[in-house]
Amino acid sequence: MNVNGCHYRTIWLKESDPKIVQIINQQALPFKFEILDLSTFNDVVTAIKDMYVRGAGLIGATAAFGMYLASLEAGEKSFNKDLALAANLLKNTRPTASNLTWAADRMLKTLSAFNGSLERKREAARLEAMTIANEDAAFCKRIGLHGLEIIKKISEQKNGENVNILTHCNAGWLAFVDYGSALSPVYAAFDQGIKVHVWVDETRPRNQGASLTAWELCEHGVSHDLIPDNAGGHMMLNGLVDMVVTGADRVTREGDAANKIGTYLKAIAAKENNVPFYVAFPSSTFDFKMKSGVKEIPIEERDSSEVRFITGKTKEGKIETVQICPDSTPARNWGFDVTPAKFITGLITERGICEANEKGILSLYSEQTNNGG
Amino acid sequence: MNVNGCHYRTIWLKESDPKIVQIINQQALPFKFEILDLSTFNDVVTAIKDMYVRGAGLIGATAAFGMYLASLEAGEKSFNKDLALAANLLKNTRPTASNLTWAADRMLKTLSAFNGSLERKREAARLEAMTIANEDAAFCKRIGLHGLEIIKKISEQKNGENVNILTHCNAGWLAFVDYGSALSPVYAAFDQGIKVHVWVDETRPRNQGASLTAWELCEHGVSHDLIPDNAGGHMMLNGLVDMVVTGADRVTREGDAANKIGTYLKAIAAKENNVPFYVAFPSSTFDFKMKSGVKEIPIEERDSSEVRFITGKTKEGKIETVQICPDSTPARNWGFDVTPAKFITGLITERGICEANEKGILSLYSEQTNNGG
Repeated sequence: MNVNGCHYRTIWLKESDPKIVQIINQQALPFKFEILDLSTFNDVVTAIKDMYVRGAGLIGATAAFGMYLASLEAGEKSFNKDLALAANLLKNTRPTASNLTWAADRMLKTLSAFNGSLERKREAARLEAMTIANEDAAFCKRIGLHGLEIIKKISEQKNGENVNILTHCNAGWLAFVDYGSALSPVYAAFDQGIKVHVWVDETRPRNQGASLTAWELCEHGVSHDLIPDNAGGHMMLNGLVDMVVTGADRVTREGDAANKIGTYLKAIAAKENNVPFYVAFPSSTFDFKMKSGVKEIPIEERDSSEVRFITGKTKEGKIETVQICPDSTPARNWGFDVTPAKFITGLITERGICEANEKGILSLYSEQTNNGG
Repeated sequence: MNVNGCHYRTIWLKESDPKIVQIINQQALPFKFEILDLSTFNDVVTAIKDMYVRGAGLIGATAAFGMYLASLEAGEKSFNKDLALAANLLKNTRPTASNLTWAADRMLKTLSAFNGSLERKREAARLEAMTIANEDAAFCKRIGLHGLEIIKKISEQKNGENVNILTHCNAGWLAFVDYGSALSPVYAAFDQGIKVHVWVDETRPRNQGASLTAWELCEHGVSHDLIPDNAGGHMMLNGLVDMVVTGADRVTREGDAANKIGTYLKAIAAKENNVPFYVAFPSSTFDFKMKSGVKEIPIEERDSSEVRFITGKTKEGKIETVQICPDSTPARNWGFDVTPAKFITGLITERGICEANEKGILSLYSEQTNNGG
C-alpha cells in the first residue's frame, strides 16, 4: 500500500539488520507516520498489547515475528520450552483475535518438528514468519478480487453511479500485512475505475475509523466521509448505503463473526433495511473448533480510560488527551461484539464468497469437515 | 433538580431583574457550572442555535422566553408583526424539534389575541412564557410517575435486583425545565428506593450522554456507567439491559419518533433482543399534523466540525478541543434519526402510557382525532 507514494507493508524485517522487526506505529496515526523497531520478544508483546499494531491479520503476523524474536532469545536446550512459553504469552495479549493463536501455534508446530542446529532453527523461524506475512498479503489480495465482483454488480445496477459502502473500524491494509480484508475489494474496485464512496464509521472508543481508515483511504485517493457510529441506521433507512463490509477477529464454523464493538448494530440495521452485509477475512480468522459465536467467543473488556479520554491534535498541532466526562464517571469498555450468522449476507475469504453457515463455509474449506468443536 | 444540593431549573427569569432570562450554560458542562444571562432576543436565538440550551422541552421553554424578550423589544404599532418575525426566526434555529414551533406558535397566538396596552401585552408575554415553563416541569414530573410503574414491574420481576436502563443522549432535567422525560421515571424510581442502574450512551458527536446525562445522574446519586454508542447491541444480546428509554424531538400521530441520531440503531437492537423500548416526552413534542416520521420529519444536518473535533478537559484542567481525524477528512453530521413506531414498546406521556400507533395516541389525546395532517 502507498504512503506518500512509497510502497509499505505494516510489518517487515529491517533490511540492514534482519534481527529487528519494524512496524508502522499505529498509535501515532493519523497525525504522524512513524516506524518503530521491535528488537526483543518483549517489545512485540508490548506492541500487540498496547496496540501499536492492531487488526486481525497484523496481530497474527506480529505474533509470528514475535516467535522469531523469541527463537533468537531461546537457549539451545530449552528451545522448545522457551518457544512454548513465548506462544502462551502472546496468546494472552488479546483474547478475541483468532489470528493470534493461529499464528503462534503454527510457528510452534513448525519449530518443534524441526531438527537441526540452534542457528538453523532460528533461520526456520524467520522463514516461517515471513511466509505467514506473505500469505496474509496474498490472501488479502485475493479477498479483494472476490469482493470486487460484488461491488461491480452493484455499480452496474446503479448505472455506474457511486457505490456507497459503509465500513466499521479499520479492516484495511493497516489491519493486515497489506491490502486489508474489508477494504481490499474497495481498493480493487477503485483501481479498476469503478466509482466508490466509503462511509467511515468513527468507531468509538478507539476511533480506528477516524484515525486509520480515513487516513488510508485518503492516502489511496478513495472518496470518503467520516460519520459518527450513530449515523449508519439513519443512512440505511434513507437509501444512502449500498452495502456494508467489515472485517472480523474470529469467525466460527457456523459463520458467527466477532468484530469491533458496534458491528452487530450495523448488521441488524442492514438486515432490517435490505442492505447487503458482508464480512471479509482470510482463513486464519476462522476458529473451526467453535460453533456458536455468542456463547463461545471470549469478548475482551478493555480499560475504561479508553472511553473516558480521547486523544487528538490541538489547533497548535500538539497531540493532547482530553477527558470527556465528569471526573467521577465510571465507564465500561467491551472491545468486540458477535454478529450472528443470520445477519450476514456472505463471507468473503481468499477462496471465494460463501454463505455464513456451516454448509457454505465447508463448501470452500472441505478439509475442515471433521475438525468441528 | 439538585446541583450541589441546591434546587435549580434550567431556565428562569432573573430575580433582581425579570427582563433578563437566565440559563445554565450546557456548553460548559460537565466541567463548569455556569449561569448565563440572556438579555436580548438575539441572545436567545444564539443560545438555541449554538446549543447553550438544548433538549426538546428546554428549547420550547427558551423559545417562549425568547418571545417574551421580543415583546420587550417590539414597537407598539408593529407589535404583532414584530412578534411574528421573532417566531419565524426562532423556528428556523433548529428544524427537527417540535417543541420549538409549538412554543413559538403558542406565544404568538396568545399575544395576537390579547387586547391592551403595550405594557400589558408584555406582561401577558411574561406570564405565558412562565406558564409554558411551569407546564413543562409539571408534565415531566407526571411522565416520571407513569414511567415509574414500568420500572417497578421489572424490579419486582427481578426480585429487587438492579434494573438496568439504557438511555441515549440527554433527556434528563437538563433537556427540559425540570425532571426530564426519559430520566424522570429513573429519578422517581431512585427516590422510592428502587435499585436502578443507568447505561449512559456517550452520544457522539456532541457527547450529551458523557457530558450531561452522566453529570446529572452523578449530581442525583444514581448509579451509572458511561458506554460507547457501539456497545448497546452487545449488551442487549448478553442480557445486560432490562429496558431502553429515550426522549424525543418530534413524534407523529402514528407514533414515529425523531430523536438524537443513533436512537434508531438501539431501537432495532432492542426489538431483536426482546428488550422493551420506551419513548418518553410531554405532549408538546407531538406533531399531530404528521403521519409518517421517516417521510415527513425534517432532519437537521449540522456542521461537520462537530464530528471532526472533540472538546474535553486536559489533565492540567484546561478545556481543549482536539481534532480526531486527518486534516483533509470530510465528515457528515445528521443530528437526528427517526425510529418507526413498530420498534417502540410504548410512549410515556404526561397523560399516561400508550401504544405507539394512532389508536393508542388518540386514546390519550382524543381532542386530536380530527386534527390529522
